[in-house]
Order: sequence, then structure tokens, then C-alpha cells
Amino acid sequence: MPTVPYRLELLKSKDMESRIDEAADSPLLEGTRFVRACLRRPVDRTPVWFLRQAGRYMQEYRDVRKHHTLVEICKQPELAAEVTITAAEKLGVDAAIIFADLLLPLEPMGLPFEFQAGEGPVIQQPVRTAEQVMALRTDRAFELDYVARAIQKVASHFRNRLGIIGFCGAPYTLASYMIEGGGARNYIETKRMMYGAPLAWSSLLDKLVTVLTEYCRQQVQAGADVIQIFDSWAGSLALADYQQYAFEPTRRLIRAVQQMGVPVIYFGVETAGLLGAMAATGADVIGLDWRQPLDVSWRALGSGCAVQGNLDPVTLFAPLEVLEQRVQGILRAANGRAGHIFNLGHGIVPGTPVENVQAVVKIVHEFRRED
Amino acid sequence: MPTVPYRLELLKSKDMESRIDEAADSPLLEGTRFVRACLRRPVDRTPVWFLRQAGRYMQEYRDVRKHHTLVEICKQPELAAEVTITAAEKLGVDAAIIFADLLLPLEPMGLPFEFQAGEGPVIQQPVRTAEQVMALRTDRAFELDYVARAIQKVASHFRNRLGIIGFCGAPYTLASYMIEGGGARNYIETKRMMYGAPLAWSSLLDKLVTVLTEYCRQQVQAGADVIQIFDSWAGSLALADYQQYAFEPTRRLIRAVQQMGVPVIYFGVETAGLLGAMAATGADVIGLDWRQPLDVSWRALGSGCAVQGNLDPVTLFAPLEVLEQRVQGILRAANGRAGHIFNLGHGIVPGTPVENVQAVVKIVHEFRRED
Repeated sequence: MPTVPYRLELLKSKDMESRIDEAADSPLLEGTRFVRACLRRPVDRTPVWFLRQAGRYMQEYRDVRKHHTLVEICKQPELAAEVTITAAEKLGVDAAIIFADLLLPLEPMGLPFEFQAGEGPVIQQPVRTAEQVMALRTDRAFELDYVARAIQKVASHFRNRLGIIGFCGAPYTLASYMIEGGGARNYIETKRMMYGAPLAWSSLLDKLVTVLTEYCRQQVQAGADVIQIFDSWAGSLALADYQQYAFEPTRRLIRAVQQMGVPVIYFGVETAGLLGAMAATGADVIGLDWRQPLDVSWRALGSGCAVQGNLDPVTLFAPLEVLEQRVQGILRAANGRAGHIFNLGHGIVPGTPVENVQAVVKIVHEFRRED
Repeated sequence: MPTVPYRLELLKSKDMESRIDEAADSPLLEGTRFVRACLRRPVDRTPVWFLRQAGRYMQEYRDVRKHHTLVEICKQPELAAEVTITAAEKLGVDAAIIFADLLLPLEPMGLPFEFQAGEGPVIQQPVRTAEQVMALRTDRAFELDYVARAIQKVASHFRNRLGIIGFCGAPYTLASYMIEGGGARNYIETKRMMYGAPLAWSSLLDKLVTVLTEYCRQQVQAGADVIQIFDSWAGSLALADYQQYAFEPTRRLIRAVQQMGVPVIYFGVETAGLLGAMAATGADVIGLDWRQPLDVSWRALGSGCAVQGNLDPVTLFAPLEVLEQRVQGILRAANGRAGHIFNLGHGIVPGTPVENVQAVVKIVHEFRRED
């Protein structure tokens, strides 16, 4: 793996430089706190937000869902912005992540999908052959601009108060959805193509990188301060397979986004064995699941990354004293080291008591190291 | 955590001593090779077997399933033994694991369950309250003796040729099934009881340890050389939660089984963050999933354990040259160190080509270190 000094290029880029100056001038601005933490700069207190903070656990979201499907919300910038803003304000977090679905980029590539009740996403024509990979289009990412328009609205609402997070799926994870035709248990078809048809595989991931780069560019131009790349399924890979089949396209996407002048958060679950390789992508921040203690994972990443995490989302169902213990345990493991963003180790699950999520924000914001 | 020299006691125990002597006298016997590896003694070649080696991927098993349900096979010693023996012989592996279902012990505790088509197991009355925990019975483990009778048949068929593995679920994993009422995605009800009703939780796990100890005793008396404890869902726990809510009952069960004179294999998936704590249970062998390289996991376990693993089961769908590469990569990572049992990192999945499983046995048996 070539070592390229792109973090340096990034910090020297004009866009990023002006953001950092702004951060330095106004250390108490919320958005600034979040971006500063991504860049491992000192902050007045640990920033906090939640994966899937706008979701079914929240009454306001359920109310919107009564009248609109998930995809309708994504495609109507007014609605997507409303859902994004409401959740961030209700929780009092330090960042707002745009409400969107991971699979949106599949549609302009020629793979329509739908959500079936209780089934998750279903792609009618999964990609299984080299011919099907060849047929995928990479020239219509502009059709995704509804996400950028929603970001514009969120950014103009929050500018200089909260961090604005755009996002997309990682190449491996989106390829898996395309090949499996939806969620999967064992990723048999994905790995079958990966092992058995390496040229088709690498062409598929290249096409995804092309589309995702353009998609992220739209989001950054619209005002995203940070891009989070979700590699939800990377944890299904052995390290050797991650390195051989997923690393390089991911690294390329991350680097392209950084060259747009924003930091990248790279997130996956069940990745304890992949952390070194994930850090080698050059991502500014690695999102951690809850399985391994934060300090252990941070050591495995080396010194070049910030970290985001890592409370078990189901701990939000615990009595307040247990919840407080676990949150403080994570903050103690971070030990005040620059570059920690508090978050869950995975998305908030349906049924989570909203008041417990709000309690976590309070615990994080009020935490002072005892030493 | 108290450190007790029970491994020493174990090795001094008469039962174990005679098994080890037997092993030393006949180094080429297959069963001996497997047990020796569990005890980290030198072997002539790395022993190999497969998680779920008797299963739907195999025609002979599907033929039996045409006429019998899964539970029927488990409860008829003749059938369970046949299925166990056929798979081990067809593959040419070094150990036979008794065909049984993880949930069998729930029935004599007062929780009947059934398998619904495509749904996995369903427990009609999940355990959610302290009263329901109190009502669970611990005095009818003798009803499980059909498993021991099957082991007897397998042991008398294979004695001195293959290792005979008995097994049970770990207390945490079985408790999760009881509370969720079947498989689960997020273990919300399980963790809700664990965090919110710690007395009910610990009473539930104590009852499980009582029943499981008796169940294992039957299996060892019937001829099991080794007991494997499946903690399939331990990987859903953060380390602090594993230590607080799952470790102690597991350690107690493992120790009780070892005092019967047989080594214990302790297996879970997504456990990279738990390995140190899993080793601290005192298990002789830790079963590893495929996510983290074998040598990295072995280092995390410290020097007191043998390891079992850790090929991604889906690599069995790869072309032979990729499969060979991955198998040899694992053998090289083990580096001939005493105490490696080759296996998958999880069970064989339906659709796996049998000839690829057989190819792995051949690759493992023919492997010679190059250095």
C-alpha cells in the first residue's frame, strides 16, 4: 500500500484551511467542535451525535412516516431536511446527519429497489454476472441531487451551530446489496463473485467509486462539513479478503472526498480484526462498534485517526445508573485524548426511549475527567 | 477473578491421565490427535473437523431429513448417531460432533420450543419476568439422556479412531434464546433483563449452569472426549457486559466439565474484543471466527489456550486455488505451534459444495510447513 501525504494536502487545501481557521476563531461553535474533533484538534467538550438519530424510535419521525414512505422522505428535500433538523434539535446533539438511504445511488446506476414490509430493501434484478456489471451506468449521479438540496436546507438552518454530515455507503457494502439483492445472512453470492470473478468484482467496485465520488461531491458542495462512509458489511470479511477485495476502492473513495476539503468518517461493525486496515485507508475518523473497548480499538488504529463511538445501542434500554456507568466508561477510555466523537456502536433501534438518548447527551456534555 | 490451578488438577485427574497416556502410546490414532491438540501436545499433523459438518449441504443428511424433523433426529439415538457418523466418515475428519440442537435443554426446564418453516426455533412462552425464571425446573436433565445414548453409539463406532465431541450452549446464549423466544437481531429483551433485573438474570444463568453441567456429565460418561460450549451470541456483548453478566456462570460450567476429566472448547463469533476474557474462563481451546487472523487472535488469548479455526465458511464457495491459499494462510499463521485444530470460523452453510469441504481436509492433512 503506497503511503501518500494526502492528509497534509488536505490540511493545506484552501477549503479545509478556511474551515479550520473558522474553527480556531470560534472555539465554542457547535459545528466547529464536531469538525475539530474529526481533525483531532482540542475541543471544549466531547461532541456527541447518534447513528440513526432520526428514526422510528422518535414520535416526530413516525408522524412523518404516517404520510410518506422512507424513499419519499429521501427524495423530497423539504421533508428530508425537516426530519434531519427535528431529530438533531430534539436531542441537542453536536451534528446533524442528512436523512437518506444507503441504497439511493443504486437507482441511477440502473438498479431500482423497493422496501417490502418487514423485509428491508429488495432489488428486483440482483447483479450476478459480468454482463450485468457492464450494464451498470455511472453517468447519472446528478439524479441524486435531491440529497444535496436537502443538505443545503439543513446547512442553512444550522450553519455554524452543528456539524453537517453527508454520507454514502462504502463500495463493498453497496456491491453486496447489489449482488445479494437486499440484506443477506452469509453473503454467499457476494463472496462467490469476489473470489470467482475478480475482474467483474473490481469493475463493479470501480463503477461504485465513480458514482459515490460524484454523489459525495454534490453533498460537500451543498454544505456537508464531513462525509461518513458506511461499510456496514465489511465486518463479514476476513482481513485477507478485506485487503484483497475491498480496501483499494474504499481508499480511493476516501481520498477523493478528502480532496474536496472535508474529513471522512469511515464506519463499520464487527471490524475489530480490520481496524489496522481501515485506518490504512487514510480516513480521518474510524467509527467503532461497541464490542471492543474504545481504548483497545484506538490503540489498534495507531495514532493517525480520530475515533467515533462506541456505546452498545441496546444499553439505551438500561436503567439510568447502568447507562451512566457505561457512557462514563467510554469517556474515561477516551481519556480526553483529542479526536473522540461520542456515538453509539450502531444505529438507534426501534423502541429506544427518547429520554434515554437525551440523557446520554447530557451525560457526555457534563462529563469532566476526574484526574 | 480468582486464579485457580484447575488445569493442573485436571491433568492430574485419573480419567484425563489415562486418556493422555493412551495418546502418548498411540500417536497415530485419529481421536488421539484431536484430543492431544486440545491439550496443546505435539501432533503428527493438524487435526481438522467442521462446525455443522452434518447438515443440509450434504445429500445424505437431506435424505434423512425427508422423513424426520430435526428434533426427531436428535431424539432418536439411532438416527442422531447415523447422521453424526456418516458426515465424519464422508469428510475424513479427525473428530465427530454429536448431532443435537442447542435448545434441547430448554424443554426439560419447562420451555417447549418448535421449529417453524424458515423461521428458526420459536419458544412459545419466552422468559421475561423473575416469576418465570423461578418457575424453570432444574431437576429433569435426565430427560436429555437420548443425546448421551447417541454419543455411546458414535463412541463405540469410532473409539480410538476419531475424537468424539459432545456439546451444549453457553449460559448467556441459552438465556438469550429463552428471553427473546427465538433468534434475535438486537437482543433487546435479553439485555433489558440483564441490565434491569440483575437478580432474575443471575438466577436464570445459575439454573442453566445446573442443567448444563448435568447434561455434559451424561455426555462425558457416554464417551465424549471433549465438550464444546457454543456461546453463539456472546459477540453481541460489550466486554464490560460480558465480564459483568456472562463470564462467571460460563467459567463455572467450563470448570465443572473439566473436572469430569475432559477438555473444553469454548466457541463464539464476533468475539475479537472478548478473547482475553474468554481465555480467562480457563477453557482449554478457544474457537475463533474468521474475522481476525488466527495468529492475532492467538496472541490476544495469551499462551494458556489451544485454538480452533478459522476459515470463513463462505470461502468454501471459492475456486479451489483461492480456497487452498486461504487454508494454507491459516496453517501458516498457526506456524506449527502445538494446539491448533483446523476448523471453520462458523458453521457450514447450506449450498456448500461437499467436494470443497473434502478438499480442505486433504489440504490440511497434506500441509507441510515450508520453513
